[in-house]
Amino acid sequence: MAEIKYYWEDFTPGEVAQFGAYQVTREEIIEFASEYDPQPMHLDEEAAKKTFIGGLCSSGWHTCAMAMRMMCDHYLLQSAGMGAPGLDDSKWRAPVRPGDILSLNRECLERRASKSRPEMGLTRFRHTMTNQHGEVKMIIEGSMMFARRTPGAEA
Amino acid sequence: MAEIKYYWEDFTPGEVAQFGAYQVTREEIIEFASEYDPQPMHLDEEAAKKTFIGGLCSSGWHTCAMAMRMMCDHYLLQSAGMGAPGLDDSKWRAPVRPGDILSLNRECLERRASKSRPEMGLTRFRHTMTNQHGEVKMIIEGSMMFARRTPGAEA
Repeated sequence: MAEIKYYWEDFTPGEVAQFGAYQVTREEIIEFASEYDPQPMHLDEEAAKKTFIGGLCSSGWHTCAMAMRMMCDHYLLQSAGMGAPGLDDSKWRAPVRPGDILSLNRECLERRASKSRPEMGLTRFRHTMTNQHGEVKMIIEGSMMFARRTPGAEA
Repeated sequence: MAEIKYYWEDFTPGEVAQFGAYQVTREEIIEFASEYDPQPMHLDEEAAKKTFIGGLCSSGWHTCAMAMRMMCDHYLLQSAGMGAPGLDDSKWRAPVRPGDILSLNRECLERRASKSRPEMGLTRFRHTMTNQHGEVKMIIEGSMMFARRTPGAEA
């Protein structure tokens, strides 16, 4: 396991980080969709052209998964992460297409110590995904749990 | 493409449907995580035992993807679906483990016609995922767009 660099204390409300890039391919879109979301707009270019979305695009869940991979590579694998309770809100703003190069902007919205678990704190993030042309593809907001460097200290 | 059975009019607020099952395997948990969420609790049983979650479990995004596959098989592939704007709320309640057999309960919460697009309506669903022992694993709420059987008619 990677060395732990980031504890709960290391994410400060207002702080912004930018990271990526993730190169989206036709093959990966189709592979994910074949397994988890076999709708025509995610499986086949010709069929996708006839749908409301006008061409092949990734499953929204695949878009989330690609975001997660960028989060892991940039900070989660080096953090004292303790999971996430869920998502507060997520918006799929524009279809993700083959050829898109995705990156993420992470904004730390707030943090709070856990009342019941002194070794843990919660941090709420907004992650905004854009492509190489600055087009916003997805915005997800939610909290993550992290171990505290100094359990139980004054927050 | 499958024949269209379900239009916007066919989902009625208050209606409940139950479907599944999805058999979760160790191999699939590791395969998904290797690609999208390579944290120790999703990759390796021994490493997972040493984490806060006490054993191998699926990535939360993988859990979402498995839910989507069940939705596709049960109704989406036979529906006049026009995508989804995002999720209002999602909660990962309990870890999904190898050996879990997952099913979904779909509750139709509300529906409304689109003001700007007479050919379309929105339907808000809550999907609750449980395993074979009735343990709740995930609850997701959000709207989906569907074509209307009778565009522009009184809703």
